[in-house]
Amino acid sequence: MPEGPLSGITVVDLSRVLAGPYCTMVLADLGARVIKVERPGSGDDARQMGPFIDGTSAYFASINRGKESIALDLLVPADRSIFEGLLDGADVLVENFRPGVLGRLGYGWEKVAVRWPGLVLASVSGFGQTGPYSDRPSYDMVAQAMGGIMSITGDPGGEPVRVGSSIGDLAAALFCAVGVVSALFERQVSGVARHVDVSMLDSQVALLENAIVRFGASGVVPGPLGARHPSITPFGVFRAGAGTRLVIAAGNDEIFGRLCQVLDLPLLAGDARFATNELRCQFEGDLESALEAALAARPADEWLVVLEAARVPCSPINDVAAVLADPQVAARRMVVTLDDPAPGPPGTVGLGGLAGLRVAGNPIKLSGVADPVVRPGAPALDADRESILAGMSELRERSGRDH
Amino acid sequence: MPEGPLSGITVVDLSRVLAGPYCTMVLADLGARVIKVERPGSGDDARQMGPFIDGTSAYFASINRGKESIALDLLVPADRSIFEGLLDGADVLVENFRPGVLGRLGYGWEKVAVRWPGLVLASVSGFGQTGPYSDRPSYDMVAQAMGGIMSITGDPGGEPVRVGSSIGDLAAALFCAVGVVSALFERQVSGVARHVDVSMLDSQVALLENAIVRFGASGVVPGPLGARHPSITPFGVFRAGAGTRLVIAAGNDEIFGRLCQVLDLPLLAGDARFATNELRCQFEGDLESALEAALAARPADEWLVVLEAARVPCSPINDVAAVLADPQVAARRMVVTLDDPAPGPPGTVGLGGLAGLRVAGNPIKLSGVADPVVRPGAPALDADRESILAGMSELRERSGRDH
Repeated sequence: MPEGPLSGITVVDLSRVLAGPYCTMVLADLGARVIKVERPGSGDDARQMGPFIDGTSAYFASINRGKESIALDLLVPADRSIFEGLLDGADVLVENFRPGVLGRLGYGWEKVAVRWPGLVLASVSGFGQTGPYSDRPSYDMVAQAMGGIMSITGDPGGEPVRVGSSIGDLAAALFCAVGVVSALFERQVSGVARHVDVSMLDSQVALLENAIVRFGASGVVPGPLGARHPSITPFGVFRAGAGTRLVIAAGNDEIFGRLCQVLDLPLLAGDARFATNELRCQFEGDLESALEAALAARPADEWLVVLEAARVPCSPINDVAAVLADPQVAARRMVVTLDDPAPGPPGTVGLGGLAGLRVAGNPIKLSGVADPVVRPGAPALDADRESILAGMSELRERSGRDH
Repeated sequence: MPEGPLSGITVVDLSRVLAGPYCTMVLADLGARVIKVERPGSGDDARQMGPFIDGTSAYFASINRGKESIALDLLVPADRSIFEGLLDGADVLVENFRPGVLGRLGYGWEKVAVRWPGLVLASVSGFGQTGPYSDRPSYDMVAQAMGGIMSITGDPGGEPVRVGSSIGDLAAALFCAVGVVSALFERQVSGVARHVDVSMLDSQVALLENAIVRFGASGVVPGPLGARHPSITPFGVFRAGAGTRLVIAAGNDEIFGRLCQVLDLPLLAGDARFATNELRCQFEGDLESALEAALAARPADEWLVVLEAARVPCSPINDVAAVLADPQVAARRMVVTLDDPAPGPPGTVGLGGLAGLRVAGNPIKLSGVADPVVRPGAPALDADRESILAGMSELRERSGRDH
């Protein structure tokens, strides 16, 4: 059994592509058993999405590691009966169909709550189970655009840019994981299970952070600020020598003082224009010029050593290769490699060949809980059918609901 | 008592500014009682951070709504005794000091685990409690730069840009919230409490998503892609008539077919260059030109109506004002207003005047749980001292640990 706080919890996962599967990956990393119920034939759509390695989706593998797979057609009575048997022993059902679809399959919250009263149902959708847009299709890009984050990301006056990872999906996945675990906690205390309803759009609004109150306080609509912070200076990307760049984040007066000292700019620290953060924000252009004139003397990597020694928060602008090679990232076990996945039955959509693939680890570190650097791979479609069916009665008995 | 799955749970919160306070806001939204323990005199640093309304930090108010405040100096014996009394009745202690600071105050995990064996300790930090960078100072900007997200956000060949909200803090806050609630669940099942150790850097790595496997599959370091998706086409921002823009996200062949039909481009749907997503990615420039030639006939808002009717995922690029005015956002209660906060004792750093401030609501919707559109405001510094002290013995008795 996997070690972790959710050991003993069984999640039946109907979700596809990203928001739902990322949520259940987080749950699996915490020790839950996750059984992916996939469409026979092609399975989760992400199996057909690149990047591919030897014809197998590395994308799918990266967000479905450590899960089990069974192929079931929920329109076929025999398969429905297996699915219902799984729900008999499950603690959580996760789905990211468009609102209404699960109900048309006969498993809407009203029915689930009656037949499986201890089952937590988690629905991730583009716009939520309610409201005028509820029924609309969505994708990460739609959530990023409609939720406002695109309008505050990018260069001032430049083209709108997307956050480079699918934050529209991932934010919803994380809020949904919080909701699921909270619902499990409540069920453990009171016996009541709930329907968790998380949308990509809502999650984007929740992440707008100070942009909402900046608008409220000033009436000025926040726009993109490049690499700058809206209300802290100096805090951003600076040019150093030999065409290099680095991030310096002087979040308070004390750090600003140390920065001036390290850059041998004693006059700057005493300059009335830069005496407080508010003034530094006002005279930001002047300050940037002065800092970059000094930074030009040495390349970024040399400055980073000096700045770190002076405890000035700073960073290289790491690309993905640099992230994967970073000693702190390694020490924290944040890059893990996949183990050989179990082979699927003959004729099924296989994985195979992705053993050794490097993917992100689990950022939730818990005292006394294992954090292995080699993790089980993602399953081939239907790979776990036999073991899932063989264990169904046992599953029903050991369900977390019967604790 | 607030309604929610964490009703009855008490969180003592030593955290400042953003990652810790955002985490405890999520817990408060789920029904937990959150007691902010702040430095006497100035309190949480965020109280001095803009934007301000009538001299009061709207920033602070937006992430500390619904919490209580008590000012305690953890270097003073009498205050330590009050703090320890709070821990006697608490379920969770959250902190975001640099690693080592809490231990020097006498409340490191080793001591906490012995004296308060049922207390979950959650630590959010820049780099984590372990590893070579553990002791370094950090800020959102450092996490975004070091964790790689800046390297994949922005225009190809352009200046590096920051994600416009503080995703470095917020991602860590969300992973920490998942960790805390998981630990509470485990404690409820087994009685064991754990130390949750979440870092901003680790959380950024976990959000890199397919950038890691794209690098692994191709050896090519992923760069910024503007508003495009790395492996789906057409999926991004398009120019329409009258200088307007919109997002269209045609995530599969069927949607692409409907898009061609709506734009009256039947030849495009049959064009061999655009027959599959893989081909569309290859001939992306040609496809974009063809689509934009058709889109030029009408402005974005007209196209959005037509595209929605055809069930093609699409969106305006909403700024913050548009987000706050959106009917779906309203229907989902994702914009809430703050109620009058309790006034602080005379002479303390007050809030006041921020009643009516609009902030983001709670994106975790739970069946049968209230989701009020008016929420209690943030506390003035030390505002709740009397009621907290008066309720301490009661708190100790009703602690979730004694369930």
